[in-house]
Amino acid sequence: MSTTDELLEANRAFAEGFDKGELPAAPARKVAVIACMDARLDPAKALGFGDGDAHVIRNAGGIVGDEEIRSLAVSQHLLGTEEVVLIHHTGCGMLGLDEEELAVRMESEAGRRPDFELRGFSDLEESVRESIRRVTESPFVPHRESVRGFVYEVETGRLREVK
Amino acid sequence: MSTTDELLEANRAFAEGFDKGELPAAPARKVAVIACMDARLDPAKALGFGDGDAHVIRNAGGIVGDEEIRSLAVSQHLLGTEEVVLIHHTGCGMLGLDEEELAVRMESEAGRRPDFELRGFSDLEESVRESIRRVTESPFVPHRESVRGFVYEVETGRLREVK
Repeated sequence: MSTTDELLEANRAFAEGFDKGELPAAPARKVAVIACMDARLDPAKALGFGDGDAHVIRNAGGIVGDEEIRSLAVSQHLLGTEEVVLIHHTGCGMLGLDEEELAVRMESEAGRRPDFELRGFSDLEESVRESIRRVTESPFVPHRESVRGFVYEVETGRLREVK
Repeated sequence: MSTTDELLEANRAFAEGFDKGELPAAPARKVAVIACMDARLDPAKALGFGDGDAHVIRNAGGIVGDEEIRSLAVSQHLLGTEEVVLIHHTGCGMLGLDEEELAVRMESEAGRRPDFELRGFSDLEESVRESIRRVTESPFVPHRESVRGFVYEVETGRLREVK
Protein backbone atom coordinates (compact mmCIF):
# COMPACT_ATOMS: atom_id res chain seq x y z
CA MET A 1 0.00 0.00 0.00
CA SER A 2 1.48 3.35 -1.02
CA THR A 3 1.60 6.34 1.30
CA THR A 4 -0.90 8.07 -0.99
CA ASP A 5 -3.34 5.18 -0.51
CA GLU A 6 -2.85 5.41 3.25
CA LEU A 7 -3.58 9.16 3.13
CA LEU A 8 -6.75 8.47 1.15
CA GLU A 9 -7.86 5.96 3.75
CA ALA A 10 -7.26 8.54 6.46
CA ASN A 11 -9.29 11.03 4.39
CA ARG A 12 -12.28 8.68 4.34
CA ALA A 13 -12.30 8.63 8.15
CA PHE A 14 -11.84 12.42 8.19
CA ALA A 15 -14.79 12.94 5.81
CA GLU A 16 -17.05 10.74 7.93
CA GLY A 17 -16.50 13.01 10.92
CA PHE A 18 -16.55 16.19 8.81
CA ASP A 19 -18.56 19.13 10.13
CA LYS A 20 -20.79 20.01 7.21
CA GLY A 21 -21.23 23.60 8.43
CA GLU A 22 -20.11 25.59 5.42
CA LEU A 23 -17.29 28.05 5.88
CA PRO A 24 -16.92 31.08 3.59
CA ALA A 25 -13.94 31.20 1.22
CA ALA A 26 -12.67 34.49 2.69
CA PRO A 27 -10.34 33.82 5.65
CA ALA A 28 -12.11 34.84 8.88
CA ARG A 29 -8.98 36.27 10.47
CA LYS A 30 -7.90 38.15 7.35
CA VAL A 31 -4.33 36.89 7.39
CA ALA A 32 -2.09 35.12 4.88
CA VAL A 33 0.85 33.05 6.10
CA ILE A 34 3.82 32.38 3.81
CA ALA A 35 5.96 29.57 5.23
CA CYS A 36 8.49 26.93 4.32
CA MET A 37 7.16 23.55 3.18
CA ASP A 38 9.14 21.86 5.99
CA ALA A 39 7.49 18.73 7.39
CA ARG A 40 8.18 19.75 11.01
CA LEU A 41 6.20 22.98 10.74
CA ASP A 42 2.40 22.91 10.89
CA PRO A 43 1.40 26.59 10.61
CA ALA A 44 -2.15 26.05 11.93
CA LYS A 45 -0.90 24.29 15.05
CA ALA A 46 2.11 26.53 15.66
CA LEU A 47 0.04 29.72 15.29
CA GLY A 48 -3.19 28.46 16.77
CA PHE A 49 -5.54 29.15 13.88
CA GLY A 50 -8.42 26.99 12.75
CA ASP A 51 -10.36 25.98 9.66
CA GLY A 52 -11.43 28.99 7.63
CA ASP A 53 -9.09 31.41 9.40
CA ALA A 54 -6.07 31.98 7.17
CA HIS A 55 -4.54 31.46 3.75
CA VAL A 56 -1.38 29.36 3.84
CA ILE A 57 1.20 29.69 1.05
CA ARG A 58 4.23 27.40 1.26
CA ASN A 59 7.37 26.58 -0.72
CA ALA A 60 10.96 25.45 -0.26
CA GLY A 61 12.41 28.05 2.10
CA GLY A 62 9.33 30.17 2.71
CA ILE A 63 10.79 32.83 0.42
CA VAL A 64 8.83 35.41 -1.57
CA GLY A 65 9.08 35.72 -5.34
CA ASP A 66 6.66 36.46 -8.16
CA GLU A 67 4.63 33.30 -7.59
CA GLU A 68 4.11 34.11 -3.92
CA ILE A 69 3.19 37.71 -4.81
CA ARG A 70 0.59 36.25 -7.21
CA SER A 71 -0.95 34.18 -4.41
CA LEU A 72 -0.82 37.09 -1.99
CA ALA A 73 -2.40 39.45 -4.51
CA VAL A 74 -5.24 36.98 -5.03
CA SER A 75 -5.56 36.56 -1.25
CA GLN A 76 -5.89 40.29 -0.63
CA HIS A 77 -7.72 41.45 -3.76
CA LEU A 78 -10.24 38.62 -4.01
CA LEU A 79 -10.52 37.24 -0.52
CA GLY A 80 -9.96 40.18 1.78
CA THR A 81 -6.85 39.31 3.79
CA GLU A 82 -4.93 42.28 5.20
CA GLU A 83 -2.02 40.97 7.29
CA VAL A 84 0.98 38.94 6.14
CA VAL A 85 3.05 36.58 8.31
CA LEU A 86 6.31 35.26 6.81
CA ILE A 87 7.98 32.19 8.33
CA HIS A 88 11.43 30.72 7.70
CA HIS A 89 12.84 28.18 10.16
CA THR A 90 15.99 26.84 11.78
CA GLY A 91 17.50 23.76 10.19
CA CYS A 92 16.19 24.68 6.75
CA GLY A 93 17.63 22.79 3.77
CA MET A 94 17.72 26.01 1.76
CA LEU A 95 20.06 27.65 4.29
CA GLY A 96 23.59 27.25 3.04
CA LEU A 97 22.39 25.28 0.02
CA ASP A 98 25.19 24.52 -2.43
CA GLU A 99 23.21 25.47 -5.54
CA GLU A 100 25.94 24.45 -7.94
CA GLU A 101 26.18 20.97 -6.45
CA LEU A 102 22.42 20.51 -6.60
CA ALA A 103 22.27 21.87 -10.16
CA VAL A 104 24.97 19.41 -11.22
CA ARG A 105 23.13 16.55 -9.53
CA MET A 106 19.91 17.56 -11.27
CA GLU A 107 21.67 17.87 -14.60
CA SER A 108 23.15 14.37 -14.25
CA GLU A 109 19.63 12.95 -13.98
CA ALA A 110 17.73 15.33 -16.24
CA GLY A 111 20.31 15.73 -19.00
CA ARG A 112 20.22 19.49 -18.67
CA ARG A 113 20.58 22.12 -15.99
CA PRO A 114 17.46 23.37 -14.20
CA ASP A 115 15.77 26.23 -16.07
CA PHE A 116 14.73 27.89 -12.81
CA GLU A 117 16.60 29.38 -9.86
CA LEU A 118 17.08 27.14 -6.84
CA ARG A 119 16.82 30.09 -4.46
CA GLY A 120 18.93 28.96 -1.53
CA PHE A 121 20.12 31.54 0.98
CA SER A 122 23.15 32.02 3.20
CA ASP A 123 21.64 34.03 6.08
CA LEU A 124 18.31 33.10 7.64
CA GLU A 125 17.39 36.48 9.12
CA GLU A 126 18.53 38.33 5.99
CA SER A 127 16.36 36.05 3.84
CA VAL A 128 13.35 36.86 6.04
CA ARG A 129 14.09 40.58 5.64
CA GLU A 130 14.44 40.18 1.89
CA SER A 131 11.04 38.44 1.75
CA ILE A 132 9.47 41.21 3.85
CA ARG A 133 10.93 43.75 1.40
CA ARG A 134 9.57 41.90 -1.62
CA VAL A 135 6.07 42.09 -0.17
CA THR A 136 6.27 45.68 1.06
CA GLU A 137 7.74 46.84 -2.27
CA SER A 138 5.17 45.12 -4.44
CA PRO A 139 2.52 47.49 -5.78
CA PHE A 140 0.29 44.47 -6.41
CA VAL A 141 -0.18 43.77 -2.71
CA PRO A 142 -2.64 46.40 -1.51
CA HIS A 143 -2.26 45.88 2.27
CA ARG A 144 1.36 46.32 3.31
CA GLU A 145 0.89 47.84 6.78
CA SER A 146 1.32 44.56 8.66
CA VAL A 147 3.99 42.43 6.99
CA ARG A 148 6.00 40.72 9.69
CA GLY A 149 8.65 38.02 9.43
CA PHE A 150 9.70 35.25 11.78
CA VAL A 151 12.08 32.38 12.29
CA TYR A 152 10.36 29.25 13.59
CA GLU A 153 12.67 27.27 15.84
CA VAL A 154 12.13 23.59 15.08
CA GLU A 155 13.91 22.81 18.36
CA THR A 156 11.49 24.74 20.59
CA GLY A 157 8.34 25.44 18.56
CA ARG A 158 8.88 29.14 19.16
CA LEU A 159 8.53 31.96 16.64
CA ARG A 160 11.22 34.61 16.84
CA GLU A 161 10.48 37.92 15.10
CA VAL A 162 13.00 39.29 12.62
CA LYS A 163 13.27 43.08 12.59
CA MET B 1 -4.38 43.80 19.05
CA SER B 2 -3.65 42.67 15.51
CA THR B 3 -4.33 39.14 14.29
CA THR B 4 -0.56 38.67 13.98
CA ASP B 5 -0.16 39.52 17.68
CA GLU B 6 -2.90 37.05 18.54
CA LEU B 7 -1.14 34.35 16.52
CA LEU B 8 2.10 35.11 18.37
CA GLU B 9 0.32 34.76 21.69
CA ALA B 10 -1.05 31.40 20.55
CA ASN B 11 2.49 30.41 19.53
CA ARG B 12 3.78 31.09 23.04
CA ALA B 13 1.27 28.60 24.44
CA PHE B 14 2.15 26.14 21.66
CA ALA B 15 5.87 26.40 22.43
CA GLU B 16 5.27 25.78 26.12
CA GLY B 17 3.68 22.44 25.34
CA PHE B 18 6.12 21.65 22.53
CA ASP B 19 7.53 18.13 22.39
CA LYS B 20 11.28 18.72 22.26
CA GLY B 21 11.92 15.34 20.62
CA GLU B 22 13.78 16.35 17.50
CA LEU B 23 12.36 15.28 14.18
CA PRO B 24 14.63 14.83 11.15
CA ALA B 25 14.21 17.26 8.23
CA ALA B 26 13.44 14.46 5.75
CA PRO B 27 9.69 13.72 5.71
CA ALA B 28 9.08 10.33 7.37
CA ARG B 29 6.35 9.31 4.93
CA LYS B 30 8.29 10.43 1.85
CA VAL B 31 5.45 12.40 0.33
CA ALA B 32 5.03 15.97 -0.90
CA VAL B 33 1.58 17.54 -1.06
CA ILE B 34 0.87 20.47 -3.40
CA ALA B 35 -2.41 22.12 -2.47
CA CYS B 36 -4.38 25.34 -2.74
CA MET B 37 -3.80 27.95 -0.03
CA ASP B 38 -7.54 27.90 0.77
CA ALA B 39 -8.36 28.58 4.42
CA ARG B 40 -10.89 25.74 4.58
CA LEU B 41 -8.36 23.07 3.68
CA ASP B 42 -5.91 21.79 6.30
CA PRO B 43 -3.87 19.14 4.45
CA ALA B 44 -2.52 17.50 7.62
CA LYS B 45 -6.00 17.07 9.07
CA ALA B 46 -7.71 16.10 5.81
CA LEU B 47 -5.05 13.51 4.96
CA GLY B 48 -4.25 12.36 8.48
CA PHE B 49 -0.53 13.02 8.53
CA GLY B 50 1.48 14.34 11.47
CA ASP B 51 4.53 16.42 12.30
CA GLY B 52 7.56 15.36 10.31
CA ASP B 53 5.58 13.30 7.80
CA ALA B 54 5.21 15.35 4.62
CA HIS B 55 6.27 18.44 2.73
CA VAL B 56 3.41 20.83 2.04
CA ILE B 57 3.61 23.25 -0.88
CA ARG B 58 0.69 25.66 -1.32
CA ASN B 59 -0.37 28.52 -3.56
CA ALA B 60 -3.47 30.16 -5.04
CA GLY B 61 -5.18 27.29 -6.87
CA GLY B 62 -2.80 24.46 -6.00
CA ILE B 63 -1.43 24.62 -9.53
CA VAL B 64 2.03 23.52 -10.64
CA GLY B 65 4.46 25.87 -12.37
CA ASP B 66 8.21 26.46 -12.24
CA GLU B 67 8.18 27.59 -8.62
CA GLU B 68 6.37 24.45 -7.49
CA ILE B 69 8.74 22.28 -9.57
CA ARG B 70 11.60 24.02 -7.75
CA SER B 71 10.13 23.11 -4.36
CA LEU B 72 9.37 19.57 -5.49
CA ALA B 73 12.87 19.10 -6.90
CA VAL B 74 14.34 20.21 -3.56
CA SER B 75 11.92 17.92 -1.74
CA GLN B 76 12.92 14.86 -3.74
CA HIS B 77 16.60 15.54 -4.41
CA LEU B 78 17.58 16.83 -0.97
CA LEU B 79 15.01 15.38 1.37
CA GLY B 80 14.03 12.05 -0.10
CA THR B 81 10.32 12.32 -0.89
CA GLU B 82 9.04 9.98 -3.60
CA GLU B 83 5.27 10.43 -3.94
CA VAL B 84 3.35 13.53 -5.00
CA VAL B 85 -0.24 14.39 -4.04
CA LEU B 86 -1.88 17.32 -5.86
CA ILE B 87 -4.99 18.95 -4.43
CA HIS B 88 -7.39 21.46 -5.96
CA HIS B 89 -10.79 22.04 -4.35
CA THR B 90 -14.42 22.91 -4.97
CA GLY B 91 -15.37 26.54 -4.52
CA CYS B 92 -11.91 27.76 -5.50
CA GLY B 93 -11.52 31.46 -6.26
CA MET B 94 -9.20 30.61 -9.17
CA LEU B 95 -11.94 28.58 -10.88
CA GLY B 96 -13.62 30.82 -13.43
CA LEU B 97 -11.46 33.77 -12.40
CA ASP B 98 -11.95 36.79 -14.64
CA GLU B 99 -8.25 37.53 -15.07
CA GLU B 100 -8.83 40.68 -17.07
CA GLU B 101 -11.11 42.15 -14.41
CA LEU B 102 -8.60 41.37 -11.66
CA ALA B 103 -5.71 42.73 -13.74
CA VAL B 104 -7.62 45.98 -14.29
CA ARG B 105 -8.40 46.23 -10.59
CA MET B 106 -4.75 45.64 -9.74
CA GLU B 107 -3.64 48.19 -12.30
CA SER B 108 -5.97 50.81 -10.87
CA GLU B 109 -4.23 50.47 -7.49
CA ALA B 110 -0.69 49.73 -8.62
CA GLY B 111 -0.48 52.09 -11.57
CA ARG B 112 0.56 49.28 -13.88
CA ARG B 113 -0.61 45.85 -14.88
CA PRO B 114 0.71 42.81 -12.98
CA ASP B 115 3.99 41.54 -14.39
CA PHE B 116 3.07 37.93 -13.64
CA GLU B 117 0.34 35.58 -14.79
CA LEU B 118 -2.72 35.29 -12.58
CA ARG B 119 -3.17 31.63 -13.50
CA GLY B 120 -6.89 31.14 -13.08
CA PHE B 121 -8.54 28.11 -14.67
CA SER B 122 -11.90 27.30 -16.19
CA ASP B 123 -12.14 23.56 -15.49
CA LEU B 124 -11.23 22.10 -12.11
CA GLU B 125 -10.50 18.53 -13.20
CA GLU B 126 -8.61 19.69 -16.28
CA SER B 127 -6.44 21.95 -14.13
CA VAL B 128 -5.61 19.00 -11.86
CA ARG B 129 -4.66 16.96 -14.94
CA GLU B 130 -2.53 19.81 -16.25
CA SER B 131 -0.70 20.00 -12.91
CA ILE B 132 -0.13 16.23 -12.93
CA ARG B 133 1.31 16.58 -16.44
CA ARG B 134 3.64 19.38 -15.41
CA VAL B 135 5.12 17.17 -12.71
CA THR B 136 5.32 13.98 -14.74
CA GLU B 137 6.88 15.84 -17.68
CA SER B 138 9.52 17.62 -15.62
CA PRO B 139 12.97 16.03 -15.89
CA PHE B 140 13.93 17.79 -12.65
CA VAL B 141 11.55 15.69 -10.57
CA PRO B 142 13.27 12.30 -10.23
CA HIS B 143 10.33 10.30 -8.79
CA ARG B 144 7.37 10.48 -11.10
CA GLU B 145 5.84 7.02 -10.56
CA SER B 146 3.26 8.17 -8.01
CA VAL B 147 1.88 11.57 -8.98
CA ARG B 148 -1.83 11.60 -8.23
CA GLY B 149 -4.31 14.46 -8.30
CA PHE B 150 -7.47 15.15 -6.34
CA VAL B 151 -10.34 17.54 -5.84
CA TYR B 152 -11.04 18.27 -2.18
CA GLU B 153 -14.73 18.87 -1.61
CA VAL B 154 -15.04 21.71 0.90
CA GLU B 155 -18.68 20.65 1.39
CA THR B 156 -17.89 17.09 2.53
CA GLY B 157 -14.20 16.95 3.43
CA ARG B 158 -13.77 14.19 0.87
CA LEU B 159 -10.95 13.83 -1.68
CA ARG B 160 -12.05 12.76 -5.12
CA GLU B 161 -9.34 11.41 -7.41
CA VAL B 162 -8.96 12.90 -10.88
CA LYS B 163 -7.91 10.42 -13.55
